Amino acid sequence: MIVLHKENAGWIARRLRTEVHSGLPLEEVIEIINEVRRNGDDAIIRFEEMFDGVKLSRDSIAVDPSEIDRAVKALPVDLLRSIRTCIERLEQVERKFMEGLVKEVKIEFDSVAITYEFAPLDRVGVYVPRSRFSYPSSLIMAAVPARVAGVRSIVVTTPPDRNRNVDAAVLAVCKMLEIEEVYRIGGAQAIAALAYGTETIKPVQKIVGPGGRYATVAKFIASINTDIEFLAGPTELLVLADGSADPKFVAYDLLSQAEHGPDSIIVLAATSEDVANSVISHLRQTGFGVEVLDRLIVVIGDLESLIKFVEEFGPEHAQIMTSNANEVSKRIKSAGVVLIGDYTPSAASDYILGTNHILPTFGLARGRGGLSPLDFMKRVARVQASREFLLKYGDDIMRLAKYEGFLWHKKAVEVRVYERG
Amino acid sequence: MIVLHKENAGWIARRLRTEVHSGLPLEEVIEIINEVRRNGDDAIIRFEEMFDGVKLSRDSIAVDPSEIDRAVKALPVDLLRSIRTCIERLEQVERKFMEGLVKEVKIEFDSVAITYEFAPLDRVGVYVPRSRFSYPSSLIMAAVPARVAGVRSIVVTTPPDRNRNVDAAVLAVCKMLEIEEVYRIGGAQAIAALAYGTETIKPVQKIVGPGGRYATVAKFIASINTDIEFLAGPTELLVLADGSADPKFVAYDLLSQAEHGPDSIIVLAATSEDVANSVISHLRQTGFGVEVLDRLIVVIGDLESLIKFVEEFGPEHAQIMTSNANEVSKRIKSAGVVLIGDYTPSAASDYILGTNHILPTFGLARGRGGLSPLDFMKRVARVQASREFLLKYGDDIMRLAKYEGFLWHKKAVEVRVYERG
Repeated sequence: MIVLHKENAGWIARRLRTEVHSGLPLEEVIEIINEVRRNGDDAIIRFEEMFDGVKLSRDSIAVDPSEIDRAVKALPVDLLRSIRTCIERLEQVERKFMEGLVKEVKIEFDSVAITYEFAPLDRVGVYVPRSRFSYPSSLIMAAVPARVAGVRSIVVTTPPDRNRNVDAAVLAVCKMLEIEEVYRIGGAQAIAALAYGTETIKPVQKIVGPGGRYATVAKFIASINTDIEFLAGPTELLVLADGSADPKFVAYDLLSQAEHGPDSIIVLAATSEDVANSVISHLRQTGFGVEVLDRLIVVIGDLESLIKFVEEFGPEHAQIMTSNANEVSKRIKSAGVVLIGDYTPSAASDYILGTNHILPTFGLARGRGGLSPLDFMKRVARVQASREFLLKYGDDIMRLAKYEGFLWHKKAVEVRVYERG
Repeated sequence: MIVLHKENAGWIARRLRTEVHSGLPLEEVIEIINEVRRNGDDAIIRFEEMFDGVKLSRDSIAVDPSEIDRAVKALPVDLLRSIRTCIERLEQVERKFMEGLVKEVKIEFDSVAITYEFAPLDRVGVYVPRSRFSYPSSLIMAAVPARVAGVRSIVVTTPPDRNRNVDAAVLAVCKMLEIEEVYRIGGAQAIAALAYGTETIKPVQKIVGPGGRYATVAKFIASINTDIEFLAGPTELLVLADGSADPKFVAYDLLSQAEHGPDSIIVLAATSEDVANSVISHLRQTGFGVEVLDRLIVVIGDLESLIKFVEEFGPEHAQIMTSNANEVSKRIKSAGVVLIGDYTPSAASDYILGTNHILPTFGLARGRGGLSPLDFMKRVARVQASREFLLKYGDDIMRLAKYEGFLWHKKAVEVRVYERG
């Protein structure tokens, strides 16, 4: 158990972040990407056989519309309804959010006209992972904000199973969101295809969505040339609890966090040892709980220190279960999402609250929030100056260019101001 | 000379992008970063001696306020005035832009309350490079949007010269923007210090600003844990010209682009060979122009194909010098900045137009625009659900969790809905 004092909040926050740098298969992934850049579809087909054990041809890289229809028909109606609900809630919230966005700002002064336009991206790629879990909800969280932003073409890549099938619920989401380009490719080769294109797949302007180890490293490398939202690391939950929190609820939330996998990060920040101990005793009562205890990080401190700790740590999910949860939550700004009170478990935020579950991990929540329609828009800058402007400000430009050492920059202004008119 | 047809726009755009992946000093930079993480200030001091040939002590890592004052006093008054003008124009434009931003959106429906707050970051780091050129304007372009967003502490790192001095104009900008934390550190070690902290330097929430090779690779690696704006590659200028453009102006703009260094990318997209030839003949008339000719990329095509080409290429600067430049520019959405007409040279955009010059390169302009105050704000999501909400939507959550394979997620909802009240 780590005991927190005001002075060591920053130190603890930094120590709790694991080293992410060592042992990444950087060179291997660079080689896969370069192979796809050189040999396109042929490389894709080869890597799919190598990594997913699936033999594809050029014609079967893309999922056929009939396959999508079949998948949807085979799913239970109540599951389809729940998927629809998940889509609709997120869409409704994000549309409301976007109402306030000014689409164009025109600024004219001193003979310069500047226009800033928020334009949706044209074409984005969504990677949908697959493991012992399946992730239709990840596709929803990536594609809905893109649709709300106004993106015209959304491209999905997702690994096939041994029988070349793609997860049925993922295809159902494609159907509901009118996504027609779906490719049965996973891993680094999928990211390479999205970023650089092949004969079959046109490159995209941005790649989003979490992935396994190879897809994530590939997204990292591809981010040099193609915009991404952020890299997804192991999922993180921090529960901030005082004596008013129901310890059983807290225990189940820690358990649900743990099942994501052995590397998911589970932190209990408690205002006293008693609070921590009652959560721990509930954990002990379940079989799985004993395993969770082994990797649970407990931080004890007063409320002020714990808030400071959260801000320095920047968890993906910060669940605030204290007596004045609403007030406390207003002071948290460095979390992917702030979940307030006893009835907002992170499990609910994964599906149906209307907030996004594609959230920054690895400490990135200190710098940005979760995925939003704004991630699918670009601020396009257009500017037109005039001869009058250069007459007035030419000297400033030339002086700054000269100081910095750019003599031809100076001349490009000079030729317009002095050699004409 | 590359002749463009509608069909090969995408192919040409992709071929013109150089391979950026091979030969990056990834492992070496990871080692530098890990050294700084392990040994803090001592590692910084060692690397500064190794890479910049400067012997620092713990006390001299930070630039002293008196040093800033001395630097400012030594600079010519008219240069200070031009720096001030550069700051004021950018600030004025960005303040105007931000007027339209809604700071908080509250959405309540179905017993869930969601608040989205746009909160400024608390603490950001700006890397200011130094080479045979100096870059006070880069600091302006990074720090002004941060100030407009409301960032409280801005930290600057920049390499010292052999006499331990930091560029005087950079210090003048610090003075004008009330930046008090300035560190004389460059390269990968500076980025590591900003991202992970040392005894002297507290870590930041985001790192921005262009850098040399090592700083850029370090920013790439650090971006796993600390948000960045994007990586800065070699600068790019594409001039789209027809017969109405003054070929002499175009030639000087290509020359000013070339002086950034041997790897800067210079593209002339012309609507006819005649247009291209008259620009080339102006280039030939200057000594430097002959060198530029060697690496000039000329693309000839009709206006429609050229626009398509620009969109697929995504240049940092797109300068539109055609008869209906304003109309043409409206169709360009994939450029860092669109410069319109004969009197908006990219040289002016580097300093004083009021637009930002920290712009996406490497093809990233297809996905996002230049640096803006929005890069220094995060959308903080806060959400509170209720027991009623879980009663109504609990089945949907549990059904989706079960399909995906998350049984404890299901239980975290179950325990709240069925085992109480």
